[in-house]
Amino acid sequence: VIAAPVDAVGTLGIDAGVERVLELVGIVAFAVSGGLLAVRQGFDLVGVLVLSVVTALGGGALRDVLLGAAPPAAVTDGWYLGLSLGTGLVMMVAHHRIDQRLWRAVLVFDAAGLGLFCVTGTLKALEFDVGALGSIGLGVVTAAGGGVLRDVLAGEQPQMFRSDSVLYSIPAALGAGAIVGAAEADSYAAGVGVAVAAAVFALRLAALRFRWHAPRPWPGRGSS
Amino acid sequence: VIAAPVDAVGTLGIDAGVERVLELVGIVAFAVSGGLLAVRQGFDLVGVLVLSVVTALGGGALRDVLLGAAPPAAVTDGWYLGLSLGTGLVMMVAHHRIDQRLWRAVLVFDAAGLGLFCVTGTLKALEFDVGALGSIGLGVVTAAGGGVLRDVLAGEQPQMFRSDSVLYSIPAALGAGAIVGAAEADSYAAGVGVAVAAAVFALRLAALRFRWHAPRPWPGRGSS
Amino acid sequence: VIAAPVDAVGTLGIDAGVERVLELVGIVAFAVSGGLLAVRQGFDLVGVLVLSVVTALGGGALRDVLLGAAPPAAVTDGWYLGLSLGTGLVMMVAHHRIDQRLWRAVLVFDAAGLGLFCVTGTLKALEFDVGALGSIGLGVVTAAGGGVLRDVLAGEQPQMFRSDSVLYSIPAALGAGAIVGAAEADSYAAGVGVAVAAAVFALRLAALRFRWHAPRPWPGRGSS
Repeated sequence: VIAAPVDAVGTLGIDAGVERVLELVGIVAFAVSGGLLAVRQGFDLVGVLVLSVVTALGGGALRDVLLGAAPPAAVTDGWYLGLSLGTGLVMMVAHHRIDQRLWRAVLVFDAAGLGLFCVTGTLKALEFDVGALGSIGLGVVTAAGGGVLRDVLAGEQPQMFRSDSVLYSIPAALGAGAIVGAAEADSYAAGVGVAVAAAVFALRLAALRFRWHAPRPWPGRGSS
Repeated sequence: VIAAPVDAVGTLGIDAGVERVLELVGIVAFAVSGGLLAVRQGFDLVGVLVLSVVTALGGGALRDVLLGAAPPAAVTDGWYLGLSLGTGLVMMVAHHRIDQRLWRAVLVFDAAGLGLFCVTGTLKALEFDVGALGSIGLGVVTAAGGGVLRDVLAGEQPQMFRSDSVLYSIPAALGAGAIVGAAEADSYAAGVGVAVAAAVFALRLAALRFRWHAPRPWPGRGSS
Repeated sequence: VIAAPVDAVGTLGIDAGVERVLELVGIVAFAVSGGLLAVRQGFDLVGVLVLSVVTALGGGALRDVLLGAAPPAAVTDGWYLGLSLGTGLVMMVAHHRIDQRLWRAVLVFDAAGLGLFCVTGTLKALEFDVGALGSIGLGVVTAAGGGVLRDVLAGEQPQMFRSDSVLYSIPAALGAGAIVGAAEADSYAAGVGVAVAAAVFALRLAALRFRWHAPRPWPGRGSS
């Protein structure tokens, strides 16, 4: 069901129902970006649905496969799959309604998903005891992996690797690092998770606003 | 061995030997399409063999990895691997013999594989109890996933996402849906599986014959 | 820790500390090739780090996922991840220092990694009892899979599929076949593993020196 019992607690440590709603919002935002890219590529219904689902659920699925925690929620969670597919269907008919203003809203919800999933992904990896660097890596994979799979399936270079892209994975990596640090100091608490997710969210929004880029390779002397 | 004992029953519920032969025919047809694409791309022996194997076995392997059922038959089944590799080798020397008429035969066997694997893939997912939508999704992945991996490895946009492609995944999705419906109504039987596989096969052949396309995104007003 | 106790024995059957050092050298060489490709593609820090890690660790991770042996060392082994990331960081600032001479050294270490990983990958697959062909396939995946994932993520056709490429996977396949043969004859010993790894290494270097290519598809009569 969409809402867990009121006294249940989610991965983050907050009310499970609240966390669930935030997750579903993030998933819809991810699915919008996948569906829109498929439309822009001239894909048909199949391409739009697959890109919506893969973008929304691919990062978490990849994390779970790498953890040995299959089947992932991408497969077992009817809400995840249904909302991703439903978002794809909406994009089929409404893609041209996503104007400048709506796209900005999508980016805000996408940033919320980035913040939330880098925290929940890192926490899940820590549960499986895969070490500090591995947990950070899988936190980033959870939050940003779907976008990479989306671009590969669309036949494009991953947007977030390109030097003209605005910071996306790096806020997630910093957030994942903060969670691992808190866990190693035995001081993880729901408040930490919420604060880190919010900081990643804010950092991503600031990167969009001020067009912050990741560092590029040192140019050398034209000899590379 | 290629033939199971006479009284054994396969995934579908029919005689295991018959099902096995049908599966191997489908796998060879998938491998032909992978090997031919590799030849067209100017690949060498390595590319031809890898594309043959990945196209033939990638969908089932992806399903098993997502189910947590690794190692998949793609790895453990010597006949699967051997036939895929052998088909690749044949394509190395005989690709130019695949004329119009032979290619039509390949498409027919490929359609048979599509029908069979969407049913067996869905049934396997149901065994793992991953829910209705997840089972339909994994049925489609089993039947059509190899073709997507083939195109990605060849550096092309997945053919079945393109709006100039003829229905491929949608018959598989309808078939997978019918199987899940029958299972939820507790009325799955071998006859149902055979009928659904045959219907998917027929639908795919009709799509090829009449060039049926999947719906394209609603065009909007040129503003997307 | 980087060095195992002196009397420990690695996968290959040799001193575990020696094997460990060889593995780490191979991983760094793989990571260099990933990082350099990312720089050439104009990627930013994220692209350079991801391609370094995926090239270095992707083959072994794919093998472990296909074996059902997740989480792979790619995730759990801090040295693997740390060295791959560190190599990526070095490439960010030093890519233009990889001149002709240094690149030759990278190719030599890469060939050493190819030899070592095809043997250790095959041995691991044999432990999981996946059959002869499957073990050979997973040995090749271990050694060469990272390079394929690297090229796909960079938006390029896999270099090792192209007919202008110099033998890479085929020495690995021959080596994996030799290991499986020895295992099936119950005559595997550390000396066999070392000899096969050395032979794969030498074969790859000879292929580079003499520009040996894999067979291309039979040309036919211009009718393909």
